Amino acid sequence: MIDPVFLDTPLYRCEALEPALGCAVSIKLETANPVRSFKARGTEVVASQLAEHGSRAVVCASAGNLGQALAWSGRGRGLDVTVVASRFAPAAKLDRIRALDARVELVDGDFDLARERAAAVARHDGIRLVEDSLDLETCEGAATIGLELVGPELVGPEPVDTAPSFDAVLIALGGGALATGVGHVVKALAPGVEVICVQPLGAPAMTLSWRGRRVVTTDATNTIADGVAGRRPIPAVLADLLLVADDAVLVQEASIIAGMRMLLDHAGLVVEPSAALGIAAILEDRDRFAGRHVVTIVCGSNVDVDAYHRWVGPASTRRP
Amino acid sequence: MIDPVFLDTPLYRCEALEPALGCAVSIKLETANPVRSFKARGTEVVASQLAEHGSRAVVCASAGNLGQALAWSGRGRGLDVTVVASRFAPAAKLDRIRALDARVELVDGDFDLARERAAAVARHDGIRLVEDSLDLETCEGAATIGLELVGPELVGPEPVDTAPSFDAVLIALGGGALATGVGHVVKALAPGVEVICVQPLGAPAMTLSWRGRRVVTTDATNTIADGVAGRRPIPAVLADLLLVADDAVLVQEASIIAGMRMLLDHAGLVVEPSAALGIAAILEDRDRFAGRHVVTIVCGSNVDVDAYHRWVGPASTRRP
Repeated sequence: MIDPVFLDTPLYRCEALEPALGCAVSIKLETANPVRSFKARGTEVVASQLAEHGSRAVVCASAGNLGQALAWSGRGRGLDVTVVASRFAPAAKLDRIRALDARVELVDGDFDLARERAAAVARHDGIRLVEDSLDLETCEGAATIGLELVGPELVGPEPVDTAPSFDAVLIALGGGALATGVGHVVKALAPGVEVICVQPLGAPAMTLSWRGRRVVTTDATNTIADGVAGRRPIPAVLADLLLVADDAVLVQEASIIAGMRMLLDHAGLVVEPSAALGIAAILEDRDRFAGRHVVTIVCGSNVDVDAYHRWVGPASTRRP
Repeated sequence: MIDPVFLDTPLYRCEALEPALGCAVSIKLETANPVRSFKARGTEVVASQLAEHGSRAVVCASAGNLGQALAWSGRGRGLDVTVVASRFAPAAKLDRIRALDARVELVDGDFDLARERAAAVARHDGIRLVEDSLDLETCEGAATIGLELVGPELVGPEPVDTAPSFDAVLIALGGGALATGVGHVVKALAPGVEVICVQPLGAPAMTLSWRGRRVVTTDATNTIADGVAGRRPIPAVLADLLLVADDAVLVQEASIIAGMRMLLDHAGLVVEPSAALGIAAILEDRDRFAGRHVVTIVCGSNVDVDAYHRWVGPASTRRP
């Protein structure tokens, strides 16, 4: 059901990053596609099923990437797409959603308020609500990344089981679709690979929930990593995460920016803050990863250009 | 013979670029691999053959990317690799070649002087000289990009011939390996697709040769596109190029920088100047491409970070 343009994404060692990180690092790159994030793997599944069942419309709340992906997947299948987002979401993300012919509705609050509003729209209009991380399709889509990381290799006519060459995978943790989807596959097919979720200190709700084994909400978020900034973990997603995550760590904003800059300077990759969480985690705990081989999923590159330049530009122009 | 990490690279529409360019644009991305350019497709072929025949050493001249690729391919096969380069080559490229355990010899001149020196090393040491664009392996490697663009699609058990959705391909033109390799495949399998080579006005030797149908050399080059800056076209490569190129165009430095900036701002891609030649060609001749669907091969991303920031940074920090 997933357009091949979103599948079999690059996976490669990036040795230029390694001297500074003290471990072997491989990149799983989810940005070289029409929506510049991994989210279309899930929206392709959702939109295919809706189109098959004759649906005409769909709504979601989004920090930006899910909305862009749903707009892309819906447009190709004749679906009317509505995306509810925070008015504080990056303009670049909102502009791309509109350019893909979706209707954007902004709420004067954060992502969790957008979720409430999207649910209301769905009830009122009688249309399908796509709930990121709760709806299994969004997790299954992300899980295909896991299959590409640890699944049987297709060499010759028969699939061949090969042990992955890496021993840990670093996954950005927001609502949990990416972490539970990839984590489920990794734990099923390569249980020896450590599944480490990474979240900003400024948006720690899911990590605190994972640590406490019960839902912990927060009053606010304070992070540049807009893609993972939620306050209210979904109980069912937490339950899944407890089954598949080996650890959940929190990182500082300065480490996220340092990670973005390293990916630009040494890997030639533009990434959004959420996609630098894995590198940030290595930077904050080099001893843990020393000598190991780590995969980090570079999950999105949708940034506002001006903010990006402020974060990663030459020292003379960097602002706090 | 080619490590799969270099094959089946992303090919995708980039709609965010299209309003400014006035045509449909697809990206063939050759930067998301261990050497950040397409060159390893060719060096994998060369190094495989050398290893098979028991060779222990190899030398090439390089503007930087071929050397890095040969170093990578040779290291994995136990070959001693020597790369001769101009001392004006980007430090980032030279550093990466050294980091891959190759010996770097610098000449106090440009790429064409490095070619002479590499030939002397090969004669003196009795080892294989890899001549970019002249040696067919380097063209065949590049040609695999063409197969991925216009070759039969593997959907289901049998390959299926499908007409490509695009009608022109824009190819950076330097020594000619990329242009003749990709051009040969495109003209053989999809003769209706226009093959357009793009070179900087500041390094026009091959384009002038193509136009004059005889080798034209120049005294100097003056371009930031270090990857394609040659003065002395190779006659046999020109002969091949005359068979497969529909056009060869020259673009200004300002257009190359504008192309790099557009790829960063609208596609989230870091590219070296040579990889922006295709976008530069569209910018300089919008009428020619209006309403068409164009593929541009983003052939490399090895840039010096400081130079890159100068070229594409925020307006306040841009220097001429």
